[in-house]
Amino acid sequence: MNFASDNIVGASAPVLQAIMQANAGTMAAYGNDEISKRIRVRFNEIFEREVSVFFVTTGTAANALALSSAVPPYGLCVCHREAHVIDDECGAPEFFMHGAKLAGLPGVGAKLKAEDVEVYLKSLPKAVKQMPPKALSISQVSEGGLVYGLDELAALGAVCREHGLSFHMDGARFVNALVSLGCTPAEMTWKRGVDILSFGATKNGGLMAEAVVVFKPALAEALDYRSKRAGQIISKGRLVAAQFEGYFADDHWLDNARHANRMAALLSEGLRQLPGVRLAWPTEANEVFPIIPKTLDQALKAAGILYHPWTDLSLPETERIADHEVLIRLVTSWASRAR
Amino acid sequence: MNFASDNIVGASAPVLQAIMQANAGTMAAYGNDEISKRIRVRFNEIFEREVSVFFVTTGTAANALALSSAVPPYGLCVCHREAHVIDDECGAPEFFMHGAKLAGLPGVGAKLKAEDVEVYLKSLPKAVKQMPPKALSISQVSEGGLVYGLDELAALGAVCREHGLSFHMDGARFVNALVSLGCTPAEMTWKRGVDILSFGATKNGGLMAEAVVVFKPALAEALDYRSKRAGQIISKGRLVAAQFEGYFADDHWLDNARHANRMAALLSEGLRQLPGVRLAWPTEANEVFPIIPKTLDQALKAAGILYHPWTDLSLPETERIADHEVLIRLVTSWASRAR
Amino acid sequence: MNFASDNIVGASAPVLQAIMQANAGTMAAYGNDEISKRIRVRFNEIFEREVSVFFVTTGTAANALALSSAVPPYGLCVCHREAHVIDDECGAPEFFMHGAKLAGLPGVGAKLKAEDVEVYLKSLPKAVKQMPPKALSISQVSEGGLVYGLDELAALGAVCREHGLSFHMDGARFVNALVSLGCTPAEMTWKRGVDILSFGATKNGGLMAEAVVVFKPALAEALDYRSKRAGQIISKGRLVAAQFEGYFADDHWLDNARHANRMAALLSEGLRQLPGVRLAWPTEANEVFPIIPKTLDQALKAAGILYHPWTDLSLPETERIADHEVLIRLVTSWASRAR
Amino acid sequence: MNFASDNIVGASAPVLQAIMQANAGTMAAYGNDEISKRIRVRFNEIFEREVSVFFVTTGTAANALALSSAVPPYGLCVCHREAHVIDDECGAPEFFMHGAKLAGLPGVGAKLKAEDVEVYLKSLPKAVKQMPPKALSISQVSEGGLVYGLDELAALGAVCREHGLSFHMDGARFVNALVSLGCTPAEMTWKRGVDILSFGATKNGGLMAEAVVVFKPALAEALDYRSKRAGQIISKGRLVAAQFEGYFADDHWLDNARHANRMAALLSEGLRQLPGVRLAWPTEANEVFPIIPKTLDQALKAAGILYHPWTDLSLPETERIADHEVLIRLVTSWASRAR
Repeated sequence: MNFASDNIVGASAPVLQAIMQANAGTMAAYGNDEISKRIRVRFNEIFEREVSVFFVTTGTAANALALSSAVPPYGLCVCHREAHVIDDECGAPEFFMHGAKLAGLPGVGAKLKAEDVEVYLKSLPKAVKQMPPKALSISQVSEGGLVYGLDELAALGAVCREHGLSFHMDGARFVNALVSLGCTPAEMTWKRGVDILSFGATKNGGLMAEAVVVFKPALAEALDYRSKRAGQIISKGRLVAAQFEGYFADDHWLDNARHANRMAALLSEGLRQLPGVRLAWPTEANEVFPIIPKTLDQALKAAGILYHPWTDLSLPETERIADHEVLIRLVTSWASRAR
Repeated sequence: MNFASDNIVGASAPVLQAIMQANAGTMAAYGNDEISKRIRVRFNEIFEREVSVFFVTTGTAANALALSSAVPPYGLCVCHREAHVIDDECGAPEFFMHGAKLAGLPGVGAKLKAEDVEVYLKSLPKAVKQMPPKALSISQVSEGGLVYGLDELAALGAVCREHGLSFHMDGARFVNALVSLGCTPAEMTWKRGVDILSFGATKNGGLMAEAVVVFKPALAEALDYRSKRAGQIISKGRLVAAQFEGYFADDHWLDNARHANRMAALLSEGLRQLPGVRLAWPTEANEVFPIIPKTLDQALKAAGILYHPWTDLSLPETERIADHEVLIRLVTSWASRAR
Repeated sequence: MNFASDNIVGASAPVLQAIMQANAGTMAAYGNDEISKRIRVRFNEIFEREVSVFFVTTGTAANALALSSAVPPYGLCVCHREAHVIDDECGAPEFFMHGAKLAGLPGVGAKLKAEDVEVYLKSLPKAVKQMPPKALSISQVSEGGLVYGLDELAALGAVCREHGLSFHMDGARFVNALVSLGCTPAEMTWKRGVDILSFGATKNGGLMAEAVVVFKPALAEALDYRSKRAGQIISKGRLVAAQFEGYFADDHWLDNARHANRMAALLSEGLRQLPGVRLAWPTEANEVFPIIPKTLDQALKAAGILYHPWTDLSLPETERIADHEVLIRLVTSWASRAR
Repeated sequence: MNFASDNIVGASAPVLQAIMQANAGTMAAYGNDEISKRIRVRFNEIFEREVSVFFVTTGTAANALALSSAVPPYGLCVCHREAHVIDDECGAPEFFMHGAKLAGLPGVGAKLKAEDVEVYLKSLPKAVKQMPPKALSISQVSEGGLVYGLDELAALGAVCREHGLSFHMDGARFVNALVSLGCTPAEMTWKRGVDILSFGATKNGGLMAEAVVVFKPALAEALDYRSKRAGQIISKGRLVAAQFEGYFADDHWLDNARHANRMAALLSEGLRQLPGVRLAWPTEANEVFPIIPKTLDQALKAAGILYHPWTDLSLPETERIADHEVLIRLVTSWASRAR
């Protein structure tokens, strides 16, 4: 059993099927094909409005590209101090933003509170030595596996508008959050003030299928140029677009995410039955963060079960990890099976 | 009939097959899987030595990443003035090189002559105002469809060594040149002084399969970091590696290129039979550059045949295009069919 | 006699005087002092309108900073192929513009013709692979010592407006051009469509005194941040501002430039008396570009006279340099003396 | 009385005198003059070894330029979380380093402890997602006005060597630390493992006189190019070099710093006499950090005394600021006078 991440499985059958179908015959390159045009319309339908979509092959590229359109080289981007953009991308955002800075704030379960962001923004000196804040980036699902509620998103959106920040959402696990909240893509994004979204499909069944979805038109203006010079405009673009066709067809994307979340819920319940095991915080999507005895940790590893230890940096004040305990992360996916 | 480029077809059957096979089960992400390890060994065999390989999803990313390892931000990279890196990538190399400069030199059929490079390098002032030359980049096949001979490559390699330049080869059509020369990959690269190679497979049958192959170890040192921060380390990396397995199996890659070149030769001969048609320069790989009457140009377009007009910038002194003529480019591929 | 450049002399007496006076007592740092405020008002008067002024210590910094506000990282800046920004600054513009590209066009005496710029802009493919043109940069005085006439400036300004380019003027020898035309600073800049200006004072009497003067407000918005992060906001800013006070007082700046131009005119006439000597093009400011016999070249050097040889790249079609000749540049300054 | 900073006064008499003297006659530009050559030799004498010196006009430029030579674009630079490079330069280091990241660690009085740096470095994951640490930057004097002792510097130097980091010292107040320790420049830098130094002279009597001094030759290799493209190679370079001549002559630089430190000591003692006033930490150079009653704060301001409030972020665990108190910073200089 491999709980290391949700990218340790391949692509789902419908996605592969769609690639096969799209592969035949000749088509215009670089995304000027029929499938790419079709899928753009589909994105408009899904988000219930006109959106600009830019396809890329990795979540890191999606995040960095999105932020590069929102933050000038002299700007500041606020995020959680455990955010993927600040911690796990070897400085891709700083590279794409040409030296702009990421400011990491604390928050339980790797979630940011609107009031904390507000306080931070107000604390910044109004001086030329201070890089001006230009964007807020959050992860939905958070790096702690928590899901921002619609009210929390609205509150963060309001802070962004008040302070003139663009609002970016890292949606590497977008659908897992979506089905967890049981709302629409529109309700979880632009209707709450989100301006630009990293829309992840790879973890939830895609082969290499990520997209930057832009709600604030100004942010889309130069993204085609930025994407090209980042080496992200795929020559056989239709084979990326096709993945999204297979992904969206017959609610496949939603079903995959529901399954992954259900598996996490089962896992979560099962773990809580075990003596000495508790959760660092609730299981809201497809990731479980239990605090377990080191003895159990050793037993699980001995049994060949794969997963990663996790930092306790975002534990609630009240929780503490004892010397005989360890915090771990278990990730389920569309392909996980219950025993 | 579509001669617009060799990326207007999909992936070849063996490549798709390999993806299917690699897709099953769980594997480590980010290229730490068995297939990725296996294919690295295969690259060593193909190049008859230890090489470092970095997989990316586009040729632009391969070129920009390769150059970023060879040219510091204050450096100069010499190339042909029609090179893909200077003309067709929206400044990707300048982005990855952090502002380093590309210097474009002239040359018939988009090929550089060693003596011209030498003269140019010697003409540069030895002063701090002058960005110091750090790399030479050539395209094999050239943007004019010409193939550098082994002696020409050796001469360019010698100039690079003499002036302390790294030698980069843009091999978007690497195999088409390889089978045209009938030599080994080693003979066409490091044995002629090439330090780093953009190894293209997408145009010749891949789905999204490009690689940076490094012969000079120093250039490989930081490429994993540079690749990560460029958003080019694929999470389901095995599905990129798998493409190369299908590509290399049973000389599939060589067969594909031989077929594409043969189709170009046929096309070339056929065209030369037509009244008022001549070639701007010989057909050496899978691209044909005929100078045709505008009347024929209109007829072909009317017949729905797709191709691009081309610049006459690199015509030989002796050749001139009359007002009633036009220079066009016709590209054949592994999937082209003779009538 | 030293004709190598106009920066081989120190600062003029009034400028030094002004530094002495400003040096006493305490004042706010980083340009928030009274003198800096006063001099900003003076710039408004000189340009007959509200302008934004950013003080820097070198002409290279002024040019690179100005261009960074006008050209995004994915953009193109058109200039003459001999322009200081493309030839003499070790890629400072590319550094400040984060990888944007400079496109160098030909032109006699290092001057650009509006029609040539127009033709070039129209020749650019409308495709994402092509970096979009965002600015035009010219040097007034040109690197060939020629001065753009008011009509020529207006024509270039019109091309910029038509194509949505910002219009930058490198005014390292701004005043030499100004007195040569006998017009006002306003007439030579924003009234002809110039959006941003590198205003040089160092060559004409300053110690370290350059400024970026912005006419298009949008270009000024982030320049204070860009200047700070470029290390160009001087802590004892009043001592830079003071130089401009001394420079502008009692038409000192105009007198210095008139003198330098007069010296160049004298030199020009004198040279033309000599057998076998002719001018590559007219002497319009404080630089003379004679084509002289190599024998004379040797004699002058033997006499200890200092100057630089020059490229013949921008000679008119009609002119050719014979094997026994050489093209040289002689620069006069406010401190030059007639014998 | 103005205690806002030590850059609110002008240049000292000997420095101005030196400028006057150097101003006469013609000299080679861009630092190729006799004075610049002379002063480089002087730096060798002062540091008792061969060093490379690069003159710049601001401390921000010195820091950013120094770090750009030590940290590649994908690298990490460790510093204190209140360091000038991370807090006060609008991202200049990130700009010059092309997107490299600064990691800020805590420490009392803005000083870093070798053991804390060691722990941090060991905590970094060995993975491609993690930017590799390449440099350590400290401020001597620290932003808290504290001076690193020779043993502390040696310990930090040892950590750098062990982990392959370059060791940078921000010496904006270099001499204030030097006379405080009563050691030689060599003892406080390269003999303790410092590889590259921002040598500040402006705050201590210069007009615009800062220098990057390089002890590790590899770090100097490209700094002339980096400096040129940063717009930091001054055309009338002799007038910067001359400032250092005046600065070093007759121990003027040491006398200035001794005076400034003495004034701070006096101020420190005087303050401690006042009821309800205590020091956040000892006064070791020319800055005093008292915690004073808000009533006194108001009284001082009412009396027109200028200074800045300060953050309590680096207070010792034991110290706390009560609601009726405030922490302020008072800076003395070579020009401060005792009453």
